Amino acid sequence: MVRQLEETPLTLQGLADQVSMLAGNTDVFYTLFCGAAIFLMQCGFAMLCAGSIRQKNVKNIMLKNMLDACGGALGYWAVGFGVAYEGGAFIGTSGDRFFLNNYSGGGSYIDFFFQFTFAATAATIVAGTVAERCKMVAYLCYSLFLTGFVYPVVVHAIWNSAGFLSAFNESPRGGVGMIDFAGSGVVHMTGGATALIAAIILGPRIGRFYDEDGNPLDKPYDFPAHSVALQVLGTFILWFGWYGFNPGSTLSISPDGYGDIAALCAVTTTLSAAAGAVSSMFTDTLVGFLSEGEVEYDLTMCMNGCLGGLVGITAGCSVVEPWAAIIIGVISGIVYVFSSKLLVMLKIDDAVDAIPVHFFNGIWGCLATGLLASPRHTAMSYGATNCGLFYSNGQLILNEVFGILFIAGWVGAVMTPFFYGLNMLGMFRVDPLEEKVGLDISHHKGAAYDLSAPDAGDVEVFQSKHGKDGFADSA
Amino acid sequence: MVRQLEETPLTLQGLADQVSMLAGNTDVFYTLFCGAAIFLMQCGFAMLCAGSIRQKNVKNIMLKNMLDACGGALGYWAVGFGVAYEGGAFIGTSGDRFFLNNYSGGGSYIDFFFQFTFAATAATIVAGTVAERCKMVAYLCYSLFLTGFVYPVVVHAIWNSAGFLSAFNESPRGGVGMIDFAGSGVVHMTGGATALIAAIILGPRIGRFYDEDGNPLDKPYDFPAHSVALQVLGTFILWFGWYGFNPGSTLSISPDGYGDIAALCAVTTTLSAAAGAVSSMFTDTLVGFLSEGEVEYDLTMCMNGCLGGLVGITAGCSVVEPWAAIIIGVISGIVYVFSSKLLVMLKIDDAVDAIPVHFFNGIWGCLATGLLASPRHTAMSYGATNCGLFYSNGQLILNEVFGILFIAGWVGAVMTPFFYGLNMLGMFRVDPLEEKVGLDISHHKGAAYDLSAPDAGDVEVFQSKHGKDGFADSA
Amino acid sequence: MVRQLEETPLTLQGLADQVSMLAGNTDVFYTLFCGAAIFLMQCGFAMLCAGSIRQKNVKNIMLKNMLDACGGALGYWAVGFGVAYEGGAFIGTSGDRFFLNNYSGGGSYIDFFFQFTFAATAATIVAGTVAERCKMVAYLCYSLFLTGFVYPVVVHAIWNSAGFLSAFNESPRGGVGMIDFAGSGVVHMTGGATALIAAIILGPRIGRFYDEDGNPLDKPYDFPAHSVALQVLGTFILWFGWYGFNPGSTLSISPDGYGDIAALCAVTTTLSAAAGAVSSMFTDTLVGFLSEGEVEYDLTMCMNGCLGGLVGITAGCSVVEPWAAIIIGVISGIVYVFSSKLLVMLKIDDAVDAIPVHFFNGIWGCLATGLLASPRHTAMSYGATNCGLFYSNGQLILNEVFGILFIAGWVGAVMTPFFYGLNMLGMFRVDPLEEKVGLDISHHKGAAYDLSAPDAGDVEVFQSKHGKDGFADSA
Repeated sequence: MVRQLEETPLTLQGLADQVSMLAGNTDVFYTLFCGAAIFLMQCGFAMLCAGSIRQKNVKNIMLKNMLDACGGALGYWAVGFGVAYEGGAFIGTSGDRFFLNNYSGGGSYIDFFFQFTFAATAATIVAGTVAERCKMVAYLCYSLFLTGFVYPVVVHAIWNSAGFLSAFNESPRGGVGMIDFAGSGVVHMTGGATALIAAIILGPRIGRFYDEDGNPLDKPYDFPAHSVALQVLGTFILWFGWYGFNPGSTLSISPDGYGDIAALCAVTTTLSAAAGAVSSMFTDTLVGFLSEGEVEYDLTMCMNGCLGGLVGITAGCSVVEPWAAIIIGVISGIVYVFSSKLLVMLKIDDAVDAIPVHFFNGIWGCLATGLLASPRHTAMSYGATNCGLFYSNGQLILNEVFGILFIAGWVGAVMTPFFYGLNMLGMFRVDPLEEKVGLDISHHKGAAYDLSAPDAGDVEVFQSKHGKDGFADSA
Repeated sequence: MVRQLEETPLTLQGLADQVSMLAGNTDVFYTLFCGAAIFLMQCGFAMLCAGSIRQKNVKNIMLKNMLDACGGALGYWAVGFGVAYEGGAFIGTSGDRFFLNNYSGGGSYIDFFFQFTFAATAATIVAGTVAERCKMVAYLCYSLFLTGFVYPVVVHAIWNSAGFLSAFNESPRGGVGMIDFAGSGVVHMTGGATALIAAIILGPRIGRFYDEDGNPLDKPYDFPAHSVALQVLGTFILWFGWYGFNPGSTLSISPDGYGDIAALCAVTTTLSAAAGAVSSMFTDTLVGFLSEGEVEYDLTMCMNGCLGGLVGITAGCSVVEPWAAIIIGVISGIVYVFSSKLLVMLKIDDAVDAIPVHFFNGIWGCLATGLLASPRHTAMSYGATNCGLFYSNGQLILNEVFGILFIAGWVGAVMTPFFYGLNMLGMFRVDPLEEKVGLDISHHKGAAYDLSAPDAGDVEVFQSKHGKDGFADSA
Repeated sequence: MVRQLEETPLTLQGLADQVSMLAGNTDVFYTLFCGAAIFLMQCGFAMLCAGSIRQKNVKNIMLKNMLDACGGALGYWAVGFGVAYEGGAFIGTSGDRFFLNNYSGGGSYIDFFFQFTFAATAATIVAGTVAERCKMVAYLCYSLFLTGFVYPVVVHAIWNSAGFLSAFNESPRGGVGMIDFAGSGVVHMTGGATALIAAIILGPRIGRFYDEDGNPLDKPYDFPAHSVALQVLGTFILWFGWYGFNPGSTLSISPDGYGDIAALCAVTTTLSAAAGAVSSMFTDTLVGFLSEGEVEYDLTMCMNGCLGGLVGITAGCSVVEPWAAIIIGVISGIVYVFSSKLLVMLKIDDAVDAIPVHFFNGIWGCLATGLLASPRHTAMSYGATNCGLFYSNGQLILNEVFGILFIAGWVGAVMTPFFYGLNMLGMFRVDPLEEKVGLDISHHKGAAYDLSAPDAGDVEVFQSKHGKDGFADSA
């Protein structure tokens, strides 16, 4: 709904300006739609998490999912965007990105929108892990802290050209820096590491590994997912969103070669997701067959393996060959299955298996990039000659390992005392009765579903009036 | 699947033509995807409405949601598009937009597609309010009437350059006209006003404020939403769709400065939605705590506050600063909470609270624009110097008030007799027995869900064959 | 996350190169987002299919939907893409499209991504038809075979310029070839024909037309859909995805006139879907009224009619006028209603009515194009002068009929022995006890839903502590 007139004087310079302007506007368009697709991942996470848990906590988890998107937007607006992308050795400390205060320098508002969707993704990863027992206030505190500070520091180190590990640094470490194109490490491992720390400190849900009185169970009890339909819905939405997440990480589409990079990202993302799903499901089927003699196909394994494949390819999506994407996906599926079992052995309770998907496959994604980044694609995407160990020297994989250690160290150093503090203050975990009753009744005014049928007497009167014996399907 | 060859003679004019053509095609692409995202809002509304009501009317509301999209397309094709966008003092009366009859003049088919998605949005707003008691035939009549005539008249007045309130008028009223960038007033208030009139004439559902015999209840009874999961799904889809609705209202992306406008819209939309959700939930929590002494977090408040924030920013998304978007969102959340309570006090029954979200926040969105439109962004988007009251003179806010009065007057004058007429003819409300039984059984061949488990005997036989004691999760 | 610098020497040739590069990147962007929207149709199919069947097989169908997307990606990567698009008389046999092996020639990776989404669509059409009784292993075999070979052969014949029926052939048959712009025939009829053959060989579900002992029932039994909400969700997502499917079939957006084609596709797609929904629902209502004297509105009819309208317009979306799209949609709805009844008469059991939607309307879509393709749009899209029978000679409709016969013949010749073979080997259908128990319990570790409420005792304790009499909505 805008009016504007343009008179283009037909000179070469004038036309060049027009082209440049068109290119810039096309980039905004690209970033807008990639960002919107990533934003929809909030919906995917909400559906996946809610589907994975028990019916009595559905409202609670969905409210947390909404609030971390909303709180994340406000926190990232106020502080996070500046911390992540302004100049400075360790964090950005001044500039017009804070509060988008008269923002204009070096970019457009669309950068904020796009980067916010990443921050919100990092935050929401944790929601599922701590579901069914974490207090709302703790959740709000942690998610603001994560999007406003902890995650932006990681971004600053790895994606800001001032960052010490950044591939965009003027003289990147080892001639290449850490390649984490769309954030296997920056986003997923950061979120996953936070989830891991939270899960350890928060402890398992009552009845998962221990009974009400704290006695260990003979066998861990798997709480059934309350709605597989929601889980599948969430998974497909997440996969869809990843087509914004990975190709969109070019941050623009008009420059020379960027179309090729985005196209490669779409292909590697697809193949790794597919391979992860297949590999994870059949690995689980095989393990089940060997241990119990029954052939069963586990949909949850298939979904989480798919998500594992997506996380695994996120770091290297722009630098690996399609066949390598399949290898990454296959291993992602296996990483998922066994890291999930490892958590159970260690009695760490992850209500939606977000730690295997995001933390372990986040690590794997960074390592895989260090191994498999191909010369031609690394040159195309990063202009760098140091690529994966299988093709070149070990500089890249070394940087990937540094990056993993940095993220683990940083998140561990900051979030561990944070969650301990919350726990000490009694602000982290709900009381056992509330947990048993479920958070929906205890905090959110009642259950998430009411499937009660109309009054049977009324139905009978109605049917008799219409001369029908009854409806087979009206129960 | 098209073949075509191009030979570009390398002249300056030839290249300029190429650039112009590329720009035009990019605009189609932009409008196509914004329109598709807005179209998906139909899905969001369907899920939100269905989730908000009782199980016994789910099929009915979803059928209405589908039919208003479909009927809207046909009605807007036949009449609405011409009425809205052809020339003429009050309405468009002739031209090739009617029936898209040999359409070519002044635009491309994509304009129809985009504008249709807006019309369908206006129509579907009403569906939720009148749910659980409105006759199908009434619904079809009203939705065709709204998309074919009532809504297009509003569009003609405010968005058509021939319109008396239009900011695109050659000499706009007060030098600026009414700024309603993406339609807080044109779309949401129009739909919301229709919903309000319909709700008043239709009366509340049995058992909401009065019992079956018409005696007032001691306390209004809140029918529980049958599925919070569907509500949240719908909310997130709507939020996603708003990234087409607001930024897409530039109607193209290639002209100078349009990228900046679209980017600003994405940011203000995000921040207002986030602020609305947070403000609404905490306002409700505070009110609840003060009156009942319990701290509870209401997911429905959070969702509707979010939607309120989205409606509130829709008018001014291209002209306000990011901080102002947060203020608009915060107030939207509060407007939602209290206007919702007001309706209950007035015993007006809105099954999904669409009136507080769309009508009251539609008004607020227009007013907020009149207050907060900033000089630099108003200049960028509208080339106008008269901006918000806080920065400039009162011309803009005056126009916003005119616009609000015009919409209220027009919709009221047309829809009130329309709904009264339907009511007189007995075509508006289902009979009480049908209402109690639910519309799904009485009109749509049975209930929307059948969650019946397999025969327990069969399961037992199966399990004994496979040597399992039973499945914990097979209930 | 990419760095690159560009220095444009301001020469006419340099600028022309820049424009050409921008156009190419814009095309990648367009294809990426169309492909992503089409990919989301996998989600739509999963929700639609799952919603349409009984609760006891939900996990099974969703797993199949995920696996055909994943298996399809891997099969299409390995073989299908090469078979479809490399040169060769009947199929492509060599070239870098197989395994995307050093792929670069003649296109970019994005072509693979886009074409994969089509292949996955063809495969997933069958899932619903054979639901509730087909073995997982059979499903995996068939879906790999379809995406890797059967479907690509059809593509090769009709869309590859080497294909004998192709409109892109150097000397197309009858001067025009077969026009099937986005695949009413290539995709939907291929999938639908496979579904038809599978349904015949697999036989109906127990209790649909025959009781457990094989005695025919007096009247076919309609198993109620377990969740209408999921059906509607799936339908809307599919409709949304079609805005990638149809307009995206231009395969790029930058060339001259492509914006006009894409815009026309969006409009015809919308109008046909709308007309199909309305026509199908009212046809069914009329038939029901005439036979039973009750006026009922069937949501399933509305949804499937809408999908039928979408399938029907897919072949001709770029060559028919908007009014013709409405005619196509109206007839699609009627085709759906009566072909659905025909299947029941023939005792062919289609669990989700995919055969009427995709097979019969796929045929109708091709025929409709042969009848209604308009001169101006056929010239614009295909540069051809032979258009629909109503405007021109019969060359086009003849080619459409050839195409239909070719697809039916090819799919029949290959899939019939394939499914017979599976059946002979006992690999096609689950055993009757498993069918009665449902596949979720028998193969997938238990039911898809667990809506069990928290322990009533706990709730009582909790409520007494908080001094509440009870929650009306906590049941």
